[in-house]
Amino acid sequence: MAGEFDLIDRIRARAGTRGDVVLGIGDDAALLSPPPGMQLAFATDTLNIGVHFPPETAPRDIGWKALAVNLSDLAAMGAMPAWCGLSLSMPQADEAWLDGFIDGFTALAGMHDVALVGGDTTRGPLSICVSVIGLVEPARAMRRDGAQAGDDVWVSGTLGDAAAALWLWQSGRGMPDALRERLDRPVPRVALGRALRGIAHACIDVSDGLLADLAHACAASGAGAEIDVDALPASPGLMALAKDDAASRRLWQATGGDDYELCFTAPEAAADAVADAAAGIGVRVTRIGRIVQGCGIRARAGGSDWHPAVSGHQHFVPGQGLRSAAW
Amino acid sequence: MAGEFDLIDRIRARAGTRGDVVLGIGDDAALLSPPPGMQLAFATDTLNIGVHFPPETAPRDIGWKALAVNLSDLAAMGAMPAWCGLSLSMPQADEAWLDGFIDGFTALAGMHDVALVGGDTTRGPLSICVSVIGLVEPARAMRRDGAQAGDDVWVSGTLGDAAAALWLWQSGRGMPDALRERLDRPVPRVALGRALRGIAHACIDVSDGLLADLAHACAASGAGAEIDVDALPASPGLMALAKDDAASRRLWQATGGDDYELCFTAPEAAADAVADAAAGIGVRVTRIGRIVQGCGIRARAGGSDWHPAVSGHQHFVPGQGLRSAAW
Repeated sequence: MAGEFDLIDRIRARAGTRGDVVLGIGDDAALLSPPPGMQLAFATDTLNIGVHFPPETAPRDIGWKALAVNLSDLAAMGAMPAWCGLSLSMPQADEAWLDGFIDGFTALAGMHDVALVGGDTTRGPLSICVSVIGLVEPARAMRRDGAQAGDDVWVSGTLGDAAAALWLWQSGRGMPDALRERLDRPVPRVALGRALRGIAHACIDVSDGLLADLAHACAASGAGAEIDVDALPASPGLMALAKDDAASRRLWQATGGDDYELCFTAPEAAADAVADAAAGIGVRVTRIGRIVQGCGIRARAGGSDWHPAVSGHQHFVPGQGLRSAAW
Repeated sequence: MAGEFDLIDRIRARAGTRGDVVLGIGDDAALLSPPPGMQLAFATDTLNIGVHFPPETAPRDIGWKALAVNLSDLAAMGAMPAWCGLSLSMPQADEAWLDGFIDGFTALAGMHDVALVGGDTTRGPLSICVSVIGLVEPARAMRRDGAQAGDDVWVSGTLGDAAAALWLWQSGRGMPDALRERLDRPVPRVALGRALRGIAHACIDVSDGLLADLAHACAASGAGAEIDVDALPASPGLMALAKDDAASRRLWQATGGDDYELCFTAPEAAADAVADAAAGIGVRVTRIGRIVQGCGIRARAGGSDWHPAVSGHQHFVPGQGLRSAAW
């Protein structure tokens, strides 16, 4: 069995670096040199075994997802990812597991030029805490409190795949690869977040479920929203799975978590700018509703008000699935 | 039972702020405005129940210690703490526990003007991951790789109390308050770290045990060290506990972890400057040895070479105590 310092060496050898990392892994703290005039965006999020991922999840997918959910937070702010820290609790030192984990983590880090600059390894139930720091121009970050009555509500990509995959897993069924991929290897919408600076009024990532996350943005903005559940974009895989069950599909799309798409609002007059920004980076965006005066979310489907059986996610309410909530 | 968003509100209400926090708790990421020209020092460290603290540790002490071990990393770099994130996994939402935890966390944060700017709460075995960002002047940070042959080796405060307290706990005995305080509420040597910039050649914090931590600094510096174990400073509480057992006292002082004192090296000619810097902030510092050419640590006690039964700490070697290792 490997000792702790062997593990650290394995991580350090593959951590990547950047020109603005003055001192990376190996000291009490990393030293970083932010570019002049930029603000920092800072987020942290933990994944726990059995809570945020099924125990049989491949280590490389766990590594990917642990970083992805954090980069998604930076994407929602319109920030450029720069540096991250990794705090890894493992029940024992398992080199093969660690190699797979680091494979997935560094694959995603490399795609976004993120340097892993420090962290710790410790004994404990499998738990991965990642912290990320990104860079964003002053007054250009997208906040969740900027939605204005009259704004269109948009969402990137498609919704519901991860929730459908989770349901398949929880009910002991096999998962189609396309759905499993969405649950295990979410793609943080970093480029879209960057492209929406100056266009979107408000932006969040969809981690706890569209309606729950949008409700937070509306509450922060002092506004309400009307959402057309039938307009929520669905993947071909989800359409195939739910072809005879629109009710489940709507539930997964509107309330399922782990999608890590961006939900954002923009003035109606900016619709072309939104479409152009998204097209420029090859990401689908869909208008799904509108911000209105008042409070709360009104969802409609099939011409009627739509009330989900489960609305949003709270971790400490028993009987719910695998989610995370950042603040 | 409280839901997740109640917990978040309880945390947010007491998180503190600073003028350079553009956006704190409540969005996907915090926005921070670092002062021009400063570098960032970034560290992250996790505490797990039963690994880093006994299960019966008071929640306010857990909150204090979770931040303290991270501030200690910044202290070792000579950085000024600024912002932190908290990722908290709890088996259930326990408001009384959380209030105590936040009491301890914010008491220490307030002493160092650290703002808690974000984090997450999630379900899982009790685990606390804290990330800290500090500020340090370019080229003024103290690194562990700067020790030079001929340097004196110094240590702040006293050593061994936390290890003695842990031993008392593990063997089912009561702990004197003074020792328990050292284990449960370590004091990060932030002011000393700041005062040593420009004086010390190298600095680390003593988290895994003096000899183990110093060995890392020596290896990074390409040097060795000679340490006089009899010179290691001991508290009155430790002297009383070990008055008939010098062997145990030496072991706790030289190899015990969780002291969170600073161990640093400085040229002999800077001895007065070191003493003045420490006296200026009321912290005791003691010369305990010297950096030499070569490699490895040579420890002496009672006029002979001293070889501890246990040398240093590695997490994944079975049978060892409660420690943490940051990288």
